[in-house]
Amino acid sequence: MTSTPTAAADPQATARAFAPASVGNVAVGFDLLGHSVRGAGDIATVRRCARPGVRITAIRGVVTDLPREPSANTAGAALLSLLAAERLGHGFELELDKGIALGSGMGGSAASCVAALVAANALLPTPLPREALYPHALAGESVASGARTGDNVGPMLLGGLVLATPERLLRISPPAAWHCALVHPHFVLETLRAREVLAAPYPLAALVRQTANLSQVLLGCERGDAALVRAGLRDDLVEPRRAPLVPGFAAVKQAAMDAGAMGASLSGAGPSVFAWCEDAAMAARAVDAMRAAFADAGLGSDGFVSPLDGPAATLLPPADGAGAGPGFLR
Amino acid sequence: MTSTPTAAADPQATARAFAPASVGNVAVGFDLLGHSVRGAGDIATVRRCARPGVRITAIRGVVTDLPREPSANTAGAALLSLLAAERLGHGFELELDKGIALGSGMGGSAASCVAALVAANALLPTPLPREALYPHALAGESVASGARTGDNVGPMLLGGLVLATPERLLRISPPAAWHCALVHPHFVLETLRAREVLAAPYPLAALVRQTANLSQVLLGCERGDAALVRAGLRDDLVEPRRAPLVPGFAAVKQAAMDAGAMGASLSGAGPSVFAWCEDAAMAARAVDAMRAAFADAGLGSDGFVSPLDGPAATLLPPADGAGAGPGFLR
Repeated sequence: MTSTPTAAADPQATARAFAPASVGNVAVGFDLLGHSVRGAGDIATVRRCARPGVRITAIRGVVTDLPREPSANTAGAALLSLLAAERLGHGFELELDKGIALGSGMGGSAASCVAALVAANALLPTPLPREALYPHALAGESVASGARTGDNVGPMLLGGLVLATPERLLRISPPAAWHCALVHPHFVLETLRAREVLAAPYPLAALVRQTANLSQVLLGCERGDAALVRAGLRDDLVEPRRAPLVPGFAAVKQAAMDAGAMGASLSGAGPSVFAWCEDAAMAARAVDAMRAAFADAGLGSDGFVSPLDGPAATLLPPADGAGAGPGFLR
Repeated sequence: MTSTPTAAADPQATARAFAPASVGNVAVGFDLLGHSVRGAGDIATVRRCARPGVRITAIRGVVTDLPREPSANTAGAALLSLLAAERLGHGFELELDKGIALGSGMGGSAASCVAALVAANALLPTPLPREALYPHALAGESVASGARTGDNVGPMLLGGLVLATPERLLRISPPAAWHCALVHPHFVLETLRAREVLAAPYPLAALVRQTANLSQVLLGCERGDAALVRAGLRDDLVEPRRAPLVPGFAAVKQAAMDAGAMGASLSGAGPSVFAWCEDAAMAARAVDAMRAAFADAGLGSDGFVSPLDGPAATLLPPADGAGAGPGFLR
């Protein structure tokens, strides 16, 4: 991926990028494993400007009450990290169009951060490979979550299912037919609140169960063995502490399992619930059943069906035909 | 694998089996991941007899002060479990020849248990597949460790590197060239003592580091990627608590790393130390360096070099040419 000659030459060049939603944690890989989701996401518009630093000039869409101070905004902090690391003499202006609800557990803060980085990257003299944006995405994400966790930004940068350690991103390749059902109830759960319940330490036995689960899911994905994923895709560690924060969770999870899912748990910190299914039709049935269960708990919801090999963040054509941003490159 | 017609017909048929030593835990898979080791092991001789139950008639070799009461002996308890599950009307007499030192961290209790099961299995009217012996091996192992952990018995039953959950055994296939250096210092660490130091609970951050480590080792083995194993083969969870129990541990580990190992840690509960290496020559150099470091700490030691794809337990020919046991079947 390279910026166009026009973007390189124009001191006020603009680029737009889209980053998809994601399922973080994936039951067995707390803070480590995630996959991108088709059907929702954030858009960032970044303009190169002579004045150093980052200015957030607009926040539109389903969330607007986010910090405007760049160092307190995930996307702003990510761009500050990029500017500092690349020793760029200029600055960036940033507009965000939010398509992912705040506190939904669908990676909303991460999506803004990754969209901004992918757009800004297209404006660099020599754009960086996606992996090189990862440390800046972690810097941005840490503003929202208090931790440098890559399970949302990693899948958004590379697409698909990704194991994101603090040092590197590893793509995992489950079968192409496997799909995710993701249901977002209209209920806000703050990430920091959802983290508080995790603070008390864990017995070794819970840890052994969780690592057995993780191992079976990783090997099941690599080998395309649904029975292994069915055996392992369960969260014995974090879900028991967070589930009480989400109205109707037990019934929603059971609805997904009754629809045939390989496993179901909270997406990220919740309240969204995901279920992994062996094909798209099963995922569609699971979404319907999960939404009905949330409705029984008095909550409206949105549903998504996405391949586990979901999309990566991508550059978009200019919004209005003006501007000198690069075209739709992938 | 089937018993010979002679064994099936003779009410006093005898079979002998060897089970190898093993490296349990393997730094990243506490109670779950292990591999067998070439060069040391236990031998069990089992005789079918009319009287029900199990009698332990001899314990010889490097350890002799083990419980003779069958239900308190790992091999005896495993045979009692097999007899009960298969509703066999007869009993077994058992002799053990111990080649693995007690409290060495090389799976000595597991090896007696697996050798006894493999020998007894050959005497059944219809011998069971190896996987079907696993629950009985867990029943035996629990006598020694207080937990149904399969990271030693699993690799002994199947050979090689095995992920052993409480429900199933999964073979992992690292590159054939990869070898293990294993050094056993002449120092006894009791398994139960080594477990006591693990009782205090663990913070979530330690757990996330450990699961990141495990994921990288599993994927590195499956993909034959030594860089991933190098990144992940470290124990941030248990080793810090157990290492102080082993004189010279830090220097021994450093010696292995200086010899080029991908990673090194305690074997099982210790005090033995293992190191994974990219070939046999590197493993041989690591063994020499590790033994020298133990010597500096005042401890004599034994060293082993084994492929990670180590041997499975195996039937042996009769000891004295008498008896009607089946021959060397694998």
